Amino acid sequence: MSEVVATYLISDLSGDLEKKAEGIALGLTVGTWTNLPKLEQEQLQRHKGRVVNTKILQGADKGIVEIAYPAANFSADLPAILTTVFGKLSLDGKIKLVDLDILGSLRGRFPGPRFGIQGIRDSLQVEGRPLVMSIFKGVLGKDLSFLSAQLKEQALGGVDLVKDDEILFENDKTPFFKRITAGKEVLRQVWEVTGHRTLYAVNLTGKTFELRDKARRAAELGADALLFNVFSYGLDVLQALREDDEINIPLMAHPAFSGAITSSAVYGVSNPLLLGKLLRIAGADLSLFPSPYGSVAIPREDALGIKAALIEEAAEWKPAFPVPSAGIHPGMVPQLINDFGIDSVINAGGGVHGHPDGAKGGGQAFRQAVDAVLKGISLEEAAIEHEELKKALELWGGGKK
Amino acid sequence: MSEVVATYLISDLSGDLEKKAEGIALGLTVGTWTNLPKLEQEQLQRHKGRVVNTKILQGADKGIVEIAYPAANFSADLPAILTTVFGKLSLDGKIKLVDLDILGSLRGRFPGPRFGIQGIRDSLQVEGRPLVMSIFKGVLGKDLSFLSAQLKEQALGGVDLVKDDEILFENDKTPFFKRITAGKEVLRQVWEVTGHRTLYAVNLTGKTFELRDKARRAAELGADALLFNVFSYGLDVLQALREDDEINIPLMAHPAFSGAITSSAVYGVSNPLLLGKLLRIAGADLSLFPSPYGSVAIPREDALGIKAALIEEAAEWKPAFPVPSAGIHPGMVPQLINDFGIDSVINAGGGVHGHPDGAKGGGQAFRQAVDAVLKGISLEEAAIEHEELKKALELWGGGKK
Repeated sequence: MSEVVATYLISDLSGDLEKKAEGIALGLTVGTWTNLPKLEQEQLQRHKGRVVNTKILQGADKGIVEIAYPAANFSADLPAILTTVFGKLSLDGKIKLVDLDILGSLRGRFPGPRFGIQGIRDSLQVEGRPLVMSIFKGVLGKDLSFLSAQLKEQALGGVDLVKDDEILFENDKTPFFKRITAGKEVLRQVWEVTGHRTLYAVNLTGKTFELRDKARRAAELGADALLFNVFSYGLDVLQALREDDEINIPLMAHPAFSGAITSSAVYGVSNPLLLGKLLRIAGADLSLFPSPYGSVAIPREDALGIKAALIEEAAEWKPAFPVPSAGIHPGMVPQLINDFGIDSVINAGGGVHGHPDGAKGGGQAFRQAVDAVLKGISLEEAAIEHEELKKALELWGGGKK
Repeated sequence: MSEVVATYLISDLSGDLEKKAEGIALGLTVGTWTNLPKLEQEQLQRHKGRVVNTKILQGADKGIVEIAYPAANFSADLPAILTTVFGKLSLDGKIKLVDLDILGSLRGRFPGPRFGIQGIRDSLQVEGRPLVMSIFKGVLGKDLSFLSAQLKEQALGGVDLVKDDEILFENDKTPFFKRITAGKEVLRQVWEVTGHRTLYAVNLTGKTFELRDKARRAAELGADALLFNVFSYGLDVLQALREDDEINIPLMAHPAFSGAITSSAVYGVSNPLLLGKLLRIAGADLSLFPSPYGSVAIPREDALGIKAALIEEAAEWKPAFPVPSAGIHPGMVPQLINDFGIDSVINAGGGVHGHPDGAKGGGQAFRQAVDAVLKGISLEEAAIEHEELKKALELWGGGKK
């Protein structure tokens, strides 16, 4: 049977956990049960929520409950599922939605990434190493020539992807469509010189109902990828972009605003579910999230949980790229590859632009660090032959081990 | 100058609050400032964030900061504003977005309610008293005749509004368009018998990009109002529904999922901002939120803050109806009117359906309680002449004073 199993962490447990679980399973589906006439019970059996599991956690004031909601209760879209499993319940005390398992034919109703890890590797023709990404910096109020120059510097350093600043919206100086065409030309020039291909993810913004047409036109103009602040819109909007065959370019989900939903230990939605599983099933090809290392950080367990949700085996959904972000410099590459593996994107802002040789040197230092790790030699050893990496290590150190 | 002033509560203050505030104001706008050349400072002046105010709170580990973001930095839509003021920042430690003030011409870019309190009063021809609303119960798996009968009972009790259960989605037995036409017929029949008009808010659900057409068709079919789980979609989707002139019916915002964003004292967004101000400027005519009384409750201060944000004087935006919900029975009407005033909606589920005489008696008891309070007589006194109110008070008590 098709159903959704939701896992909740309850942190203000006062009474009986099983009773509480039963109350949720009924309250969010058929309302009541034991006092219903037998005939009505038979009619409603296929709509009744079911307690799958309960577990008291240490201290006895916390517990985990798993509730199965029949797919017969909702339409096959994320707003309906979220409303069912965490609509009213999100308002009901210290309860956090930590996981959702979609079971049965319902799985096929969610597309997953159009490209995924392999699709993006194919378009870049890069195998066997993590990708390296950098971010535009200080772009508010600047014009197209500024952005083009910054893009060129970044691409010359050998990064695989460059993303827009997520706070760059539609504006007169660097309008969306012009960023695409200007960026394309810059990257073509760099490719002609270096033979290296870089993808530019342009920030898709504006009113919700304009996004689809805007994204189609972006794809038509040859945009490489779209950056999208999905949590300022809605997961279903991301899914709509993914499901539109005219928008046949990768989607990069930005975690802006997600901290409002994930940060509390006792309320909201878990990071692995929101930035991992839900983004993946809705169709993100890449998911950015705070690394566990920097000043803007999430717990290591959360970051690894996001990664796992993005790449774990699932017949229906391609794996998506985990992109741990913030506080990343070249000295951290060994740690990053250790934690997030080859199939990840190493993403840096200050760690690229702040390099003594500028963004070009920054990108080179990252690529040198990646090569060193894959060859099994230490960064210090690699730095002997690579000036850019040497300068990066001098400036930022060797990073956490 | 047009700008947005965001107010934040910072709860993990370790260093200097003013320095922290300055870091936010620059970090979320132009990046850096003091080390920029003078010419660049001049160019970027109109994009620079500004610290409006800082205030250390008791204990010194908490503080309030107000930052002004120039409207030149973002497009005039809520996703852009949320990404700017609480995108990356939502991920940056114990920080909560407690208020947003939209200043200058930007205000005119947000529509506010199409009908608002007076518009809904006009369509009901009800002045001088709070409205009474009730909720469908136990509708999963039931057919149209069940829903029609339940709607009739509720309307016969004299409630002004009836709303769908928010977990009723598109389904074969009670499809959206059929609910509208069947409901309309039932309410016409009741009106012919009683002369009392009841509005039915039907739950608008489905995929985001289908909602606008679905809502237009609903309006065309004569739907009275739309219930909308806005936080499972996005605030901008609500605004799009509001701004569509073919969807010229009231919009009732449901708080499903909002608890994931508002419940923490140190993270997320405040209730008055999310369920009050933002819903109002986006165009909700009614905002449901947990009352401060029941088992699913929010702090009294939050509930009163939502009300204030929905009704406070604003030249650009009509006031919207506050609809405190959950845990409401007729004995609480004096408290409700005291707390939320005449311009509110008294909304009950169990407090209507659980009445010994059924939903009809429940609605009557609420209307009797409202009349008593407005006449200045006690519920106990009114219950002498009103059997339904008497039974309600016997069952549920007089409520909190």
